[in-house]
Amino acid sequence: MQISARNAFKGKIVHVEKGATTAVVKIEVSPGQVVTASITNEAVDTLKLAVGGEAYAVIKASDVMVAVD
Amino acid sequence: MQISARNAFKGKIVHVEKGATTAVVKIEVSPGQVVTASITNEAVDTLKLAVGGEAYAVIKASDVMVAVD
Amino acid sequence: MQISARNAFKGKIVHVEKGATTAVVKIEVSPGQVVTASITNEAVDTLKLAVGGEAYAVIKASDVMVAVD
Amino acid sequence: MQISARNAFKGKIVHVEKGATTAVVKIEVSPGQVVTASITNEAVDTLKLAVGGEAYAVIKASDVMVAVD
Amino acid sequence: MQISARNAFKGKIVHVEKGATTAVVKIEVSPGQVVTASITNEAVDTLKLAVGGEAYAVIKASDVMVAVD
Amino acid sequence: MQISARNAFKGKIVHVEKGATTAVVKIEVSPGQVVTASITNEAVDTLKLAVGGEAYAVIKASDVMVAVD
Repeated sequence: MQISARNAFKGKIVHVEKGATTAVVKIEVSPGQVVTASITNEAVDTLKLAVGGEAYAVIKASDVMVAVD
Repeated sequence: MQISARNAFKGKIVHVEKGATTAVVKIEVSPGQVVTASITNEAVDTLKLAVGGEAYAVIKASDVMVAVD
Repeated sequence: MQISARNAFKGKIVHVEKGATTAVVKIEVSPGQVVTASITNEAVDTLKLAVGGEAYAVIKASDVMVAVD
Repeated sequence: MQISARNAFKGKIVHVEKGATTAVVKIEVSPGQVVTASITNEAVDTLKLAVGGEAYAVIKASDVMVAVD
Repeated sequence: MQISARNAFKGKIVHVEKGATTAVVKIEVSPGQVVTASITNEAVDTLKLAVGGEAYAVIKASDVMVAVD
Repeated sequence: MQISARNAFKGKIVHVEKGATTAVVKIEVSPGQVVTASITNEAVDTLKLAVGGEAYAVIKASDVMVAVD
Protein backbone atom coordinates (compact mmCIF):
# COMPACT_ATOMS: atom_id res chain seq x y z
CA MET A 1 0.00 0.00 0.00
CA GLN A 2 1.22 3.45 -0.93
CA ILE A 3 -0.23 6.38 0.99
CA SER A 4 -0.57 10.08 0.21
CA ALA A 5 0.96 11.06 3.56
CA ARG A 6 4.26 12.66 2.54
CA ASN A 7 6.22 11.60 5.63
CA ALA A 8 7.17 8.05 6.60
CA PHE A 9 10.24 7.47 8.73
CA LYS A 10 11.45 3.98 9.45
CA GLY A 11 12.80 3.13 12.85
CA LYS A 12 12.68 0.88 15.86
CA ILE A 13 9.94 0.96 18.46
CA VAL A 14 11.47 2.00 21.79
CA HIS A 15 8.35 2.52 23.91
CA VAL A 16 4.76 1.25 23.95
CA GLU A 17 2.46 2.44 26.71
CA LYS A 18 -1.18 1.49 26.52
CA GLY A 19 -3.64 3.66 28.40
CA ALA A 20 -7.36 3.14 28.88
CA THR A 21 -8.19 3.65 25.20
CA THR A 22 -5.18 5.54 23.85
CA ALA A 23 -1.56 4.44 23.63
CA VAL A 24 1.74 6.27 23.33
CA VAL A 25 4.27 4.70 20.98
CA LYS A 26 7.80 5.99 20.42
CA ILE A 27 9.90 5.15 17.38
CA GLU A 28 13.60 5.94 17.13
CA VAL A 29 13.97 7.02 13.51
CA SER A 30 17.64 7.94 13.67
CA PRO A 31 20.14 7.87 16.55
CA GLY A 32 18.73 10.10 19.28
CA GLN A 33 15.72 11.15 17.18
CA VAL A 34 12.54 9.72 18.62
CA VAL A 35 9.06 10.29 17.20
CA THR A 36 6.14 10.11 19.63
CA ALA A 37 2.76 8.89 18.39
CA SER A 38 -0.57 8.87 20.16
CA ILE A 39 -2.75 6.13 18.65
CA THR A 40 -5.59 3.86 19.78
CA ASN A 41 -4.90 0.80 21.90
CA GLU A 42 -6.79 -1.06 19.19
CA ALA A 43 -4.13 -0.12 16.63
CA VAL A 44 -1.36 -1.30 18.95
CA ASP A 45 -3.09 -4.67 19.23
CA THR A 46 -3.96 -5.04 15.54
CA LEU A 47 -0.45 -4.16 14.40
CA LYS A 48 1.11 -6.11 17.30
CA LEU A 49 3.37 -3.19 18.10
CA ALA A 50 6.05 -4.04 20.63
CA VAL A 51 9.35 -2.60 21.78
CA GLY A 52 12.15 -3.70 19.49
CA GLY A 53 9.98 -4.06 16.41
CA GLU A 54 10.52 -2.13 13.22
CA ALA A 55 7.91 0.46 12.33
CA TYR A 56 7.32 3.66 10.41
CA ALA A 57 6.15 6.97 11.80
CA VAL A 58 3.72 8.28 9.18
CA ILE A 59 2.61 11.93 9.12
CA LYS A 60 0.37 13.84 6.69
CA ALA A 61 2.06 17.01 5.42
CA SER A 62 -0.83 19.19 6.57
CA ASP A 63 -0.13 18.07 10.15
CA VAL A 64 3.45 19.33 10.14
CA MET A 65 4.17 22.83 11.43
CA VAL A 66 7.35 24.82 10.97
CA ALA A 67 9.04 26.78 13.74
CA VAL A 68 12.06 29.04 13.84
CA ASP A 69 14.13 30.27 16.77
CA MET B 1 8.13 29.28 24.07
CA GLN B 2 7.70 25.60 24.97
CA ILE B 3 4.93 23.70 23.23
CA SER B 4 2.99 20.54 24.11
CA ALA B 5 3.64 19.04 20.65
CA ARG B 6 5.94 16.10 21.43
CA ASN B 7 7.88 16.20 18.17
CA ALA B 8 10.25 18.93 17.06
CA PHE B 9 13.06 18.11 14.66
CA LYS B 10 15.67 20.70 13.76
CA GLY B 11 16.95 20.90 10.24
CA LYS B 12 17.64 23.03 7.22
CA ILE B 13 14.93 24.25 4.85
CA VAL B 14 15.54 22.70 1.43
CA HIS B 15 12.36 23.69 -0.40
CA VAL B 16 9.76 26.45 -0.16
CA GLU B 17 6.94 26.51 -2.70
CA LYS B 18 4.17 29.01 -2.22
CA GLY B 19 0.82 28.24 -3.85
CA ALA B 20 -2.29 30.40 -4.02
CA THR B 21 -2.93 30.24 -0.26
CA THR B 22 -1.00 27.16 0.86
CA ALA B 23 2.72 26.48 0.75
CA VAL B 24 4.83 23.35 0.81
CA VAL B 25 8.00 23.54 2.91
CA LYS B 26 10.59 20.79 3.18
CA ILE B 27 13.08 20.52 6.02
CA GLU B 28 16.02 18.10 5.98
CA VAL B 29 16.17 16.92 9.58
CA SER B 30 18.99 14.43 9.13
CA PRO B 31 21.01 13.41 6.07
CA GLY B 32 18.52 12.14 3.49
CA GLN B 33 15.55 12.51 5.84
CA VAL B 34 13.26 15.28 4.66
CA VAL B 35 10.02 16.32 6.38
CA THR B 36 7.31 17.86 4.20
CA ALA B 37 4.98 20.45 5.69
CA SER B 38 1.89 22.02 4.21
CA ILE B 39 1.32 25.42 5.83
CA THR B 40 -0.26 28.75 4.90
CA ASN B 41 1.57 31.21 2.68
CA GLU B 42 0.95 33.67 5.49
CA ALA B 43 3.09 31.59 7.83
CA VAL B 44 5.89 31.41 5.26
CA ASP B 45 5.88 35.20 5.06
CA THR B 46 5.57 35.86 8.80
CA LEU B 47 8.39 33.46 9.66
CA LYS B 48 10.42 34.56 6.60
CA LEU B 49 11.03 30.93 5.68
CA ALA B 50 13.58 30.52 2.91
CA VAL B 51 15.75 27.76 1.52
CA GLY B 52 18.93 27.39 3.55
CA GLY B 53 17.44 28.66 6.79
CA GLU B 54 17.29 26.61 9.97
CA ALA B 55 13.88 25.50 11.13
CA TYR B 56 12.06 22.88 13.15
CA ALA B 57 9.42 20.48 11.93
CA VAL B 58 6.88 20.36 14.76
CA ILE B 59 4.24 17.62 15.00
CA LYS B 60 1.59 16.89 17.64
CA ALA B 61 1.77 13.26 18.82
CA SER B 62 -1.89 12.66 17.97
CA ASP B 63 -1.07 13.42 14.32
CA VAL B 64 1.54 10.66 14.07
CA MET B 65 0.48 7.26 12.77
CA VAL B 66 2.44 4.02 13.01
CA ALA B 67 2.81 1.57 10.15
CA VAL B 68 4.46 -1.82 9.83
CA ASP B 69 5.50 -3.78 6.77
CA MET C 1 2.00 -1.99 4.80
CA GLN C 2 -0.44 -1.97 7.70
CA ILE C 3 -1.20 1.38 9.31
CA SER C 4 -2.52 2.37 12.73
CA ALA C 5 -5.18 4.62 11.18
CA ARG C 6 -8.41 2.83 12.10
CA ASN C 7 -10.36 3.88 9.02
CA ALA C 8 -9.69 2.78 5.44
CA PHE C 9 -12.52 2.71 2.94
CA LYS C 10 -12.01 1.32 -0.54
CA GLY C 11 -13.65 2.97 -3.47
CA LYS C 12 -13.28 4.50 -6.88
CA ILE C 13 -11.76 7.92 -7.53
CA VAL C 14 -14.46 10.17 -9.01
CA HIS C 15 -12.71 13.56 -8.94
CA VAL C 16 -9.13 14.85 -8.97
CA GLU C 17 -8.56 18.59 -8.96
CA LYS C 18 -5.04 19.86 -8.59
CA GLY C 19 -4.57 23.37 -7.28
CA ALA C 20 -1.36 25.36 -6.95
CA THR C 21 0.07 23.09 -4.23
CA THR C 22 -2.97 21.30 -2.84
CA ALA C 23 -5.37 18.94 -4.56
CA VAL C 24 -8.92 17.81 -3.87
CA VAL C 25 -9.60 14.11 -4.47
CA LYS C 26 -13.00 12.46 -4.13
CA ILE C 27 -13.48 8.74 -3.64
CA GLU C 28 -16.88 7.04 -3.90
CA VAL C 29 -16.70 4.45 -1.12
CA SER C 30 -20.24 3.14 -1.49
CA PRO C 31 -23.07 4.12 -3.85
CA GLY C 32 -23.73 7.81 -3.27
CA GLN C 33 -21.19 8.06 -0.45
CA VAL C 34 -18.24 10.18 -1.51
CA VAL C 35 -15.25 11.00 0.69
CA THR C 36 -13.42 14.26 -0.02
CA ALA C 37 -9.68 14.46 0.66
CA SER C 38 -7.39 17.47 0.57
CA ILE C 39 -3.85 16.29 -0.12
CA THR C 40 -0.71 17.67 -1.74
CA ASN C 41 -0.34 17.79 -5.52
CA GLU C 42 2.88 15.89 -4.93
CA ALA C 43 0.93 12.95 -3.50
CA VAL C 44 -1.44 12.95 -6.47
CA ASP C 45 1.57 12.69 -8.79
CA THR C 46 3.47 10.10 -6.77
CA LEU C 47 0.45 7.83 -6.40
CA LYS C 48 -0.67 8.57 -9.98
CA LEU C 49 -4.21 9.23 -8.76
CA ALA C 50 -6.70 9.57 -11.58
CA VAL C 51 -10.45 9.42 -12.01
CA GLY C 52 -11.61 5.82 -12.34
CA GLY C 53 -8.78 4.33 -10.31
CA GLU C 54 -9.30 2.33 -7.15
CA ALA C 55 -8.16 3.93 -3.92
CA TYR C 56 -8.71 3.97 -0.18
CA ALA C 57 -9.74 6.91 1.94
CA VAL C 58 -7.66 6.57 5.11
CA ILE C 59 -8.49 8.49 8.28
CA LYS C 60 -6.92 8.45 11.75
CA ALA C 61 -9.53 7.85 14.48
CA SER C 62 -8.52 11.02 16.33
CA ASP C 63 -9.52 13.04 13.25
CA VAL C 64 -13.10 11.76 13.27
CA MET C 65 -15.76 13.78 15.06
CA VAL C 66 -19.24 12.65 15.99
CA ALA C 67 -22.35 14.74 15.51
CA VAL C 68 -25.99 14.22 16.39
CA ASP C 69 -29.11 15.96 15.12
CA MET D 1 -25.62 24.20 11.92
CA GLN D 2 -23.76 23.69 8.65
CA ILE D 3 -20.04 22.96 8.90
CA SER D 4 -17.16 23.35 6.47
CA ALA D 5 -16.01 19.76 7.07
CA ARG D 6 -16.67 18.09 3.71
CA ASN D 7 -17.44 14.64 5.08
CA ALA D 8 -20.44 13.67 7.20
CA PHE D 9 -21.70 10.11 7.12
CA LYS D 10 -24.87 9.14 8.93
CA GLY D 11 -25.08 5.85 10.71
CA LYS D 12 -25.82 3.99 13.89
CA ILE D 13 -23.56 3.93 16.92
CA VAL D 14 -22.36 0.36 17.46
CA HIS D 15 -19.71 0.86 20.15
CA VAL D 16 -18.97 3.41 22.87
CA GLU D 17 -15.97 2.83 25.11
CA LYS D 18 -15.02 5.54 27.56
CA GLY D 19 -11.43 5.61 28.76
CA ALA D 20 -9.89 7.82 31.42
CA THR D 21 -10.28 11.01 29.35
CA THR D 22 -10.68 9.74 25.81
CA ALA D 23 -13.41 7.57 24.32
CA VAL D 24 -13.65 5.36 21.26
CA VAL D 25 -16.94 5.53 19.36
CA LYS D 26 -17.80 3.40 16.35
CA ILE D 27 -20.52 4.29 13.85
CA GLU D 28 -21.76 1.88 11.19
CA VAL D 29 -22.28 4.15 8.19
CA SER D 30 -23.28 1.44 5.74
CA PRO D 31 -23.61 -2.33 6.10
CA GLY D 32 -20.21 -3.59 7.25
CA GLN D 33 -18.59 -0.17 7.03
CA VAL D 34 -17.72 1.11 10.49
CA VAL D 35 -16.03 4.43 11.22
CA THR D 36 -13.94 4.65 14.38
CA ALA D 37 -13.68 7.98 16.21
CA SER D 38 -11.48 8.95 19.12
CA ILE D 39 -13.13 11.82 21.00
CA THR D 40 -13.19 13.16 24.55
CA ASN D 41 -15.30 11.49 27.23
CA GLU D 42 -16.77 14.94 27.74
CA ALA D 43 -18.17 14.91 24.20
CA VAL D 44 -19.69 11.47 24.75
CA ASP D 45 -21.48 12.80 27.82
CA THR D 46 -22.58 16.11 26.31
CA LEU D 47 -23.97 14.48 23.18
CA LYS D 48 -25.33 11.54 25.20
CA LEU D 49 -23.81 9.10 22.72
CA ALA D 50 -24.96 5.52 23.25
CA VAL D 51 -25.03 2.30 21.30
CA GLY D 52 -28.04 2.20 19.00
CA GLY D 53 -28.31 5.95 18.57
CA GLU D 54 -28.07 7.71 15.22
CA ALA D 55 -25.01 9.82 14.65
CA TYR D 56 -22.79 11.28 11.96
CA ALA D 57 -19.10 10.69 11.51
CA VAL D 58 -17.71 14.10 10.52
CA ILE D 59 -14.25 14.50 8.98
CA LYS D 60 -12.43 17.56 7.64
CA ALA D 61 -11.12 17.00 4.09
CA SER D 62 -7.56 17.87 5.12
CA ASP D 63 -7.62 14.93 7.54
CA VAL D 64 -8.34 12.38 4.81
CA MET D 65 -5.46 10.55 3.17
CA VAL D 66 -5.56 8.53 -0.01
CA ALA D 67 -3.88 5.16 -0.43
CA VAL D 68 -3.50 2.79 -3.35
CA ASP D 69 -2.56 -0.88 -3.46
CA MET E 1 -26.62 19.56 14.82
CA GLN E 2 -24.44 19.11 17.89
CA ILE E 3 -20.84 18.09 17.32
CA SER E 4 -18.25 16.38 19.51
CA ALA E 5 -15.65 19.07 18.75
CA ARG E 6 -15.21 20.79 22.11
CA ASN E 7 -14.43 24.24 20.74
CA ALA E 8 -16.84 26.52 18.87
CA PHE E 9 -16.34 30.26 18.97
CA LYS E 10 -18.87 32.58 17.42
CA GLY E 11 -17.70 35.65 15.59
CA LYS E 12 -17.81 37.73 12.46
CA ILE E 13 -16.02 36.79 9.25
CA VAL E 14 -13.38 39.44 8.54
CA HIS E 15 -11.47 37.85 5.67
CA VAL E 16 -12.19 35.30 2.92
CA GLU E 17 -9.45 34.50 0.43
CA LYS E 18 -10.04 31.72 -2.03
CA GLY E 19 -6.99 30.06 -3.55
CA ALA E 20 -6.83 27.42 -6.27
CA THR E 21 -8.47 24.72 -4.11
CA THR E 22 -7.96 25.96 -0.55
CA ALA E 23 -9.27 29.11 1.11
CA VAL E 24 -8.22 31.12 4.13
CA VAL E 25 -11.07 32.42 6.29
CA LYS E 26 -10.61 34.64 9.33
CA ILE E 27 -13.22 35.04 12.06
CA GLU E 28 -13.02 37.69 14.76
CA VAL E 29 -14.25 35.84 17.84
CA SER E 30 -13.71 38.65 20.32
CA PRO E 31 -12.32 42.18 19.89
CA GLY E 32 -8.83 41.79 18.47
CA GLN E 33 -8.93 37.99 18.61
CA VAL E 34 -9.01 36.54 15.11
CA VAL E 35 -9.08 32.82 14.32
CA THR E 36 -7.59 31.73 10.99
CA ALA E 37 -9.02 28.69 9.21
CA SER E 38 -7.75 26.89 6.14
CA ILE E 39 -10.67 25.12 4.46
CA THR E 40 -11.63 24.02 0.95
CA ASN E 41 -12.97 26.52 -1.58
CA GLU E 42 -15.88 24.13 -1.88
CA ALA E 43 -16.82 24.71 1.76
CA VAL E 44 -16.65 28.49 1.28
CA ASP E 45 -19.09 28.17 -1.61
CA THR E 46 -21.44 25.68 0.05
CA LEU E 47 -21.68 27.70 3.25
CA LYS E 48 -21.73 31.01 1.31
CA LEU E 49 -19.06 32.43 3.59
CA ALA E 50 -18.52 36.14 3.08
CA VAL E 51 -16.94 39.01 4.98
CA GLY E 52 -19.38 40.42 7.51
CA GLY E 53 -21.28 37.19 8.03
CA GLU E 54 -21.59 35.45 11.37
CA ALA E 55 -19.78 32.15 11.74
CA TYR E 56 -18.24 29.81 14.26
CA ALA E 57 -14.65 28.64 14.40
CA VAL E 58 -14.89 24.96 15.34
CA ILE E 59 -11.88 22.99 16.60
CA LYS E 60 -11.53 19.41 17.83
CA ALA E 61 -9.82 19.25 21.23
CA SER E 62 -7.14 16.87 19.94
CA ASP E 63 -6.06 19.57 17.49
CA VAL E 64 -5.32 22.12 20.21
CA MET E 65 -1.80 22.40 21.57
CA VAL E 66 -0.70 24.18 24.72
CA ALA E 67 2.35 26.41 24.92
CA VAL E 68 4.00 28.29 27.75
CA ASP E 69 6.52 31.14 27.71
CA MET F 1 10.40 30.25 19.05
CA GLN F 2 7.97 31.38 16.38
CA ILE F 3 5.64 28.77 14.91
CA SER F 4 3.73 28.53 11.63
CA ALA F 5 0.47 27.72 13.44
CA ARG F 6 -1.66 30.80 12.77
CA ASN F 7 -3.61 30.70 16.02
CA ALA F 8 -2.22 31.30 19.50
CA PHE F 9 -4.49 32.59 22.23
CA LYS F 10 -3.12 33.54 25.62
CA GLY F 11 -5.08 32.72 28.70
CA LYS F 12 -5.16 31.14 32.12
CA ILE F 13 -5.29 27.40 32.71
CA VAL F 14 -8.59 26.58 34.46
CA HIS F 15 -8.58 22.78 34.30
CA VAL F 16 -5.97 20.01 34.06
CA GLU F 17 -7.17 16.41 34.08
CA LYS F 18 -4.64 13.70 33.45
CA GLY F 19 -5.93 10.37 32.17
CA ALA F 20 -4.03 7.14 31.59
CA THR F 21 -1.94 8.58 28.74
CA THR F 22 -3.95 11.59 27.56
CA ALA F 23 -4.86 14.75 29.44
CA VAL F 24 -7.56 17.37 29.02
CA VAL F 25 -6.43 20.96 29.60
CA LYS F 26 -8.74 23.97 29.51
CA ILE F 27 -7.52 27.53 28.99
CA GLU F 28 -9.74 30.57 29.49
CA VAL F 29 -8.64 32.85 26.66
CA SER F 30 -11.14 35.62 27.32
CA PRO F 31 -13.90 35.99 29.92
CA GLY F 32 -16.22 33.02 29.46
CA GLN F 33 -14.31 31.70 26.44
CA VAL F 34 -12.57 28.45 27.29
CA VAL F 35 -10.47 26.41 24.86
CA THR F 36 -10.27 22.65 25.48
CA ALA F 37 -7.10 20.79 24.50
CA SER F 38 -6.42 17.07 24.46
CA ILE F 39 -2.69 16.50 24.83
CA THR F 40 -0.38 13.80 26.21
CA ASN F 41 0.19 13.47 29.95
CA GLU F 42 3.86 13.70 29.05
CA ALA F 43 3.34 17.22 27.71
CA VAL F 44 1.49 18.25 30.89
CA ASP F 45 4.47 17.07 32.94
CA THR F 46 7.17 18.54 30.72
CA LEU F 47 5.49 21.94 30.57
CA LYS F 48 4.45 21.73 34.25
CA LEU F 49 0.93 22.77 33.33
CA ALA F 50 -1.21 23.56 36.37
CA VAL F 51 -4.43 25.38 37.10
CA GLY F 52 -3.81 29.10 37.45
CA GLY F 53 -0.79 29.18 35.15
CA GLU F 54 -0.62 31.26 32.00
CA ALA F 55 -0.58 29.38 28.72
CA TYR F 56 -1.41 29.67 25.06
CA ALA F 57 -3.84 27.57 23.09
CA VAL F 58 -2.09 26.99 19.76
CA ILE F 59 -3.98 25.73 16.68
CA LYS F 60 -2.85 25.11 13.09
CA ALA F 61 -5.13 26.89 10.58
CA SER F 62 -5.82 23.64 8.72
CA ASP F 63 -7.37 22.24 11.92
CA VAL F 64 -9.97 24.99 12.17
CA MET F 65 -13.40 24.44 10.65
CA VAL F 66 -16.05 27.05 9.98
CA ALA F 67 -19.73 26.59 10.78
CA VAL F 68 -22.80 28.72 10.20
CA ASP F 69 -26.25 28.57 11.75
